[in-house]
Parts: sequence; structure tokens; C-alpha cells
Amino acid sequence: MTTDHDPPASRVHSVRNPHAMYSGTRFADVAARIVPLDADAAAAAAARHDRLTKPRGSLGRLEAAGVQLAAIAGTSPPPLPAPATVAVFAGDHGVVAEGVTPWPSEVTAQMVANFCAGGAAVNVLARQVGASVVVVDAGVASDIPVDAPGLLRRAVRRGTGNLAVEPAMSHDETRAALDLGVEVAEQCVADGARCLLTGDMGIGNTTPSAALIAAFTGRPAVDVTGRGTGIDDGMLAHKTAVIERALARLPAGSDALDVLANIGGLEIAALAGYIVGGVAARVPVVVDGVIAAAALLTADTLVPGVSRYCFAGHRSSEPGSGIALAHLGLEPLLDLGLRLGEGTGAVLALPLLQAAAAVLNEMATFDAAGVTEKDALPST
Amino acid sequence: MTTDHDPPASRVHSVRNPHAMYSGTRFADVAARIVPLDADAAAAAAARHDRLTKPRGSLGRLEAAGVQLAAIAGTSPPPLPAPATVAVFAGDHGVVAEGVTPWPSEVTAQMVANFCAGGAAVNVLARQVGASVVVVDAGVASDIPVDAPGLLRRAVRRGTGNLAVEPAMSHDETRAALDLGVEVAEQCVADGARCLLTGDMGIGNTTPSAALIAAFTGRPAVDVTGRGTGIDDGMLAHKTAVIERALARLPAGSDALDVLANIGGLEIAALAGYIVGGVAARVPVVVDGVIAAAALLTADTLVPGVSRYCFAGHRSSEPGSGIALAHLGLEPLLDLGLRLGEGTGAVLALPLLQAAAAVLNEMATFDAAGVTEKDALPST
Repeated sequence: MTTDHDPPASRVHSVRNPHAMYSGTRFADVAARIVPLDADAAAAAAARHDRLTKPRGSLGRLEAAGVQLAAIAGTSPPPLPAPATVAVFAGDHGVVAEGVTPWPSEVTAQMVANFCAGGAAVNVLARQVGASVVVVDAGVASDIPVDAPGLLRRAVRRGTGNLAVEPAMSHDETRAALDLGVEVAEQCVADGARCLLTGDMGIGNTTPSAALIAAFTGRPAVDVTGRGTGIDDGMLAHKTAVIERALARLPAGSDALDVLANIGGLEIAALAGYIVGGVAARVPVVVDGVIAAAALLTADTLVPGVSRYCFAGHRSSEPGSGIALAHLGLEPLLDLGLRLGEGTGAVLALPLLQAAAAVLNEMATFDAAGVTEKDALPST
Repeated sequence: MTTDHDPPASRVHSVRNPHAMYSGTRFADVAARIVPLDADAAAAAAARHDRLTKPRGSLGRLEAAGVQLAAIAGTSPPPLPAPATVAVFAGDHGVVAEGVTPWPSEVTAQMVANFCAGGAAVNVLARQVGASVVVVDAGVASDIPVDAPGLLRRAVRRGTGNLAVEPAMSHDETRAALDLGVEVAEQCVADGARCLLTGDMGIGNTTPSAALIAAFTGRPAVDVTGRGTGIDDGMLAHKTAVIERALARLPAGSDALDVLANIGGLEIAALAGYIVGGVAARVPVVVDGVIAAAALLTADTLVPGVSRYCFAGHRSSEPGSGIALAHLGLEPLLDLGLRLGEGTGAVLALPLLQAAAAVLNEMATFDAAGVTEKDALPST
């Protein structure tokens, strides 16, 4: 599910020994455990595709996804990516003080309660495809109702600093949020998940996401800044200017952890940890929209190559989503104009991955079905 | 799920009274029963979307699909499009004598047996999403093994004539194939299906499909002809020339039924009937790839407007697919480079439609969840 792409023109200094940034953390431990993609399993899956009762290559990107699942799992045919869990990491953002969104921060806590009650879009879509929802408070500012069932209350701090004028997080807080994500991924896998989907909630979080995408891809703020939940032209211009201020604050020579701490978010850091935790556990990780793309870009800078173990669920209508995925060489599975977040686009893509694995596990071969193959022609 | 589009520049004469072409048929009866899309239900679904706990419009094309499901069913929220059935219509094509495909016609019968045994791609994908598969022999040339479980043996004739030199079917055969499709749709709905997906199998059938798409859209053969199951440049040029010969044979003043009879196929005619039967039964119809697109274009010419009740599951990598869908103003849900047919792309899209309905049925409203709405801003 990867394509060739030009090397990044990043604002971030190249890091010769990235692990040094976060040594001594749980994140560092799992990053060190990541094994290479299994080329033999991938080749076996590709060869198996060619024996199944269909013209070669006729299932298009579903075949590529099946090969990728085999490379991740290290076995062909690959195991079905089921059951699946979507972890929704919630956090608040000091930058809302700049007026980058019309929604009040309190909505983050209210939506966390909605997730726990099962009434949000991600709950509905997850039920529809048989996925579980785990809700994690990584840094919500407002009080969350005490009776939120199943909530993991693990706030690293109650909302970030205002990234327009100050670091969003300290380095220690950033490392703690990365570790939280790793821990959640490991717990999900220990609880039986064989596919991890990213979810997110945080009023204002398209602002740090756009800032991170600008920083890691080298694109100007105006290219990566979008309307989020729905803002007018004036607020969009203001939001772009706020992101430019944040980028201007980045110290010369910043490494990836500096960038994440300065202009990131608690739920975004946790998502980066969750992604790396899932990859280390050799389960496929499906990323959602622009928040997740920012987290994946961060994770891929902290742990180079980690995005090659992941699937992009969809291309969000937020411009930073497509830019981040293209930078990583990932082609999204869906393109439905979604811009909700919560994990909705990852959950909607899950049946496609399950189908990709099922094809390799269940389809008849030409020999077994007694179907005549066409004359030997070049595969297309 | 429709967009504005220019009026067709068709090779087919406009028909002032299309029903006259097929009067006295079961197809005519159901075409006359089609009720308008329900604008009130659509408006109610759109209004409901705006009360659900998400930014307005943030579920993109999933919201549009939910509104369309409400318009089709005549109620909001719309019923879940489940259970779903994919009917795979199989037929052979005399035009294979021209050497338009490297696969022998016998493979059609062999694949029918594979469908009945549950080993083909459409079987695997249908199981994955909980859909049923119905297999219909609409006109297979070779003998199908006697023990093909569940096969509906309803061949109108054993393969079509060679459309390069003679009519593919007589008008009576064409009407019989349309009626067969209607009957299958009605039986599927009577058996409980609440969503119909199109499936197809027929060695050589991208040739009549491209010919029909050229005839109904006015596009030249070279634009709509593709590599089907995988042919080289030489065979592609030859296939294009064969399609040009077929188009040149169309008598001046041909109406839609003349065109279908002359250059269509038995399974394609049956699919057109199946689509119209599903629409008349007010269940959503999801069309698969280029064969289904040709059938839908045919159905929409026979019964103008019928495509507005349908969903395009995906854009096939066959060029005629995108051209036909654009001509009808349909935006496909998936774009995964599929070119297998059998109904695979329709089945893969089914979870998206079920999700679209589930959102309207199950998501919490702002009021019920106690979530604060953002300030009154223009909906985006």
C-alpha cells in the first residue's frame, strides 16, 4: 500500500539516532522490537493471488492490501484482521484561546461522554462492522461526567498550552503521552484485538495537526490548513496565521520530539504511541483522518518507516490529510469527503481489509475449482 | 448520489413512449409501478443529519447516501439495507469467435459451478458482509455440471449471436431476458432481501458492455474499450475494431431495445431487468462494474430516470465504467482498481450503505447527548 515518493523537505533536522530522543520510555522499548516487513510472506501471498479463480490483478488494491497484511503478520495467507478495536484518544488544546474553532472546549468532554454512552458516529459505525471502541482521556480540560462507562482516565495534563505562544507540552509530558498510546495498544492486543484503528477527539485539534504536517512535510501553513468542523473564510485565514506563528516559534535544529512537544497535542502524541505499539505487536494499524495522519507522520519521523506497516483508511476533506499521506507514500482506501474524525474513516475502511484477507484465505484455486486458466499472457 | 450532467449525445433515437418497446412484458408492468423518489423523506433525513452529534456535513458522501436511502424507501430514517442479495447473472457471447478475449467460453460454465460451490471471489466477499449469493444461468453456452447447488437454470438461449456480424439476440429473447431479471429481483425481495446487488459472469462480456456504453453515450469505441480480464495492445486494438463493427451495424433509428438486442448480451439484459425490478420494489440497488454500468445505462434508457434510484458500488478500471457512471451522474462509492466483476465491487460497497443508514437510525442527537452545538455558522 506504499508508492514511491520524493524525499521529504522537512522543517525538522534529520535525526541520526532517533531513539535517543525518547530513550528510557516504553515507546523506545516497543520501537526497538519492530521486525522488518516479511518479504517472503508478501511474495507467497502475491503468488497465491495468481492461483485464485480470477484474472491476475483483477481485485486491484484489495490484492495489494492482502499482500501487505501478509507482510505485516509474517504469514500467508494472512490472519483475518478481526476482532478490531478503535481507540479514541481525547485531548484539549490551549490554542482554542486564539479563536480557531467555533466549538467550545467543553464539547470534548461532552463527546467523551457520548462515546462512552455509545451514541457517537464512531460507536454506530464500529457496531456496524463488529469493532470495539475504547475511549481514552489523554488530556481533556473539562470535567468528564463521573459515570462515563469504560473510560480510561489517563490524562497526562488537562489540555495543552497555547501553541501559538508557548510549547503545547513539556518533553516529559510528550513522552508520557507517547507511552500512554503504547500501553493502550498493548492492552488492546492483549484483550484480543488483531487490528487497531485510530480514533481521536479534541476541539481545536485540526490546528496542531496542520502545524505538525507543515513542520514534517515542509509545506506552508496555507496548504495544510483546513476548515475543520466548519469555519468561514475569515476564521480560516486567522487559523492559518496562528499556525504560521506556531511554526515560527520552533527552535532551529528541532528534532521530532521537540516539534511534537512544541506544536502537537496530547491525544496526537498518544496516537503516535498507539500506532508504534500496534506495529510492534504485528497487527495492522488503520489510521483515520487528518489528526491521525499528523500522528502517523510524527510516528514515522520518530521511528522511520513505521508508516509502511499502516493502512490509510481514507482521505479526509481536510487538505493536510492528503498531503501527509502522499508524503508517506500511502494511498487511502476510501475517499468519501469525511471530516469528522473519531476514527470514523478507519472504521469504514475495516471491511475492505477484512475482505482482502478473506480472499487469500477462502477463495478457490484454478486447480481446486476445475476452472481453465487463460493462455499464458503477461500479467496486467 | 447524483450530480448534474450534460444531456447525453447518444447514438440512440429518443423514445417518446419508451414503454411501447416492451409492452406486454413483466418488465413493462414493474416499470409502470415505479414511484417517484420521496422528497419529503429525503428532506427529513437531511434535517435529522443536522441534529446528530457531529459537525454538519462532516460525514460527507455517507450523509448523501443516507438521504438517498430515505428517498428510495420513502421513510426517514431509512431502513437498514439488509439483508442483501447479490444475483450473479451468467451468459455467453458469440463475439468470442472474433478473438476478443484469451479465455475460452467454457470458463463461464466452470465459474458458475465455482459460484454454486462458494469458492469464487463474490462468494468470499458476500460471506464477509453477510450477503446472500443467487446464481442465474441467463444464457450460458457450455454445459453446467448437473450438481450446481442452488443454480437457477433459466437460459433464454445458449449464448448470444456474434454481435460483430449479427444481432446478439432477437427482440423476443431480449424481452425474455429483461423479464427474467425482473423475476429474479422480485423473488429476492420476496425472500427477504432489502438491498439488491448486481453480479455478472460471462467470458467476453466486456465487449458488448463497451458497445452498449458507446451506443448510449455517443462516445467512440476507443474511449470505452478496455483490457477486460487482461489483454495486450494488439488484442485491445482488435477488440476496439470489433466494437466499431458492431456499432456500424446498428440500423438508423434504433431505439433502446433494438440496441440491446443487437449488441447486448443475455446476462446484461437480465441485469437491466433486475435493476428495474429492484427499483420498483423500492429497495436500493447497488451496481458493480462495467457490465453492470452497461446494464444500468440500458435500463435508464428503457426507463428514464431509473439510475437515480441506484448506487454505483465502485469505479472499475475498465474505462467504460467511469464513462457510463459519469453519463448517468453517479459518483461511485469505491475506487480500488477492481476489474473482476461477479458483483465484487458492489458487495465491497455494501457496508458503506449499511453504515449510512445506521448513522441515521442510531446516532445520538445534540439534545439527547447533552452536547453543546457550535455557534450558528453557515453549514459547510
